[in-house]
Amino acid sequence: MSDALRTLEDTVLAQIPLARAMQLRMQAYAGDRLTIAAPLGPNINDKGCAFGGSLVSLLTLAGWGLVVLKLRTLGHECDVYVQDSTVRYLAPVWENFSAQACLAAGESWDTFAATLAARGRARLTVDCRVALAGGQDACTLRARFVAIAKP
Amino acid sequence: MSDALRTLEDTVLAQIPLARAMQLRMQAYAGDRLTIAAPLGPNINDKGCAFGGSLVSLLTLAGWGLVVLKLRTLGHECDVYVQDSTVRYLAPVWENFSAQACLAAGESWDTFAATLAARGRARLTVDCRVALAGGQDACTLRARFVAIAKP
Repeated sequence: MSDALRTLEDTVLAQIPLARAMQLRMQAYAGDRLTIAAPLGPNINDKGCAFGGSLVSLLTLAGWGLVVLKLRTLGHECDVYVQDSTVRYLAPVWENFSAQACLAAGESWDTFAATLAARGRARLTVDCRVALAGGQDACTLRARFVAIAKP
Repeated sequence: MSDALRTLEDTVLAQIPLARAMQLRMQAYAGDRLTIAAPLGPNINDKGCAFGGSLVSLLTLAGWGLVVLKLRTLGHECDVYVQDSTVRYLAPVWENFSAQACLAAGESWDTFAATLAARGRARLTVDCRVALAGGQDACTLRARFVAIAKP
């Protein structure tokens, strides 16, 4: 795991109690994709499969983490907030799971970074998914994030 | 608190570890509105305000709980699942918070119950919100749920 990814994991686990309760682990950050994993046990619902709140939390954290990591790589010190999101629950998850985040189609890191440099804030859309072991989507989230440069 | 609400709280806290970690409490169920509360402490993010995952979890549970409670009142034994949702994060939450769920405009419990009785499954849309102490919306969620009659 890279230093940047370990630092992000340490920060999230230290500062977000629910992330600790979910026992999430940063798994990989490569090719502008971030993957975060969570075990099923602490994340079950009343039916014994993954709790919707855990799925959407992991998906949102994956999207947020992707933007944070990319901005650090580009040398921007920002606060990053989620603005809105749409979630689709497509299939129950009966196993340990992971959420993967990547830039939505039509978005560009270059445009995002240029807007941020020019205006001190910028928005972009990220697509995140939890897939079953067989590759089928179990839950997808499209979220819009805003980054605001630190003064 | 009514027996039905207490039973729902017991079930949720016993069977959903993340609900225990959030320390949620069923607060009120009256006039076809369900309110669930959570303290800020276990639900903070890295900035010290409410974690988006906690907000959306509480909102989704409020919507799910409303459908479950109403169906029990009407005498239906069903499994209830969330299908999709849209969340808007409008303002940071720096205090203990609660999520309130009610039927979306244009929806009808009568139609929902009649469809369920006729087909064994039915869908409906619920609106949920977390408001600040002053009444302003901090986070809203519109979610679609499906109820499936138990065999």
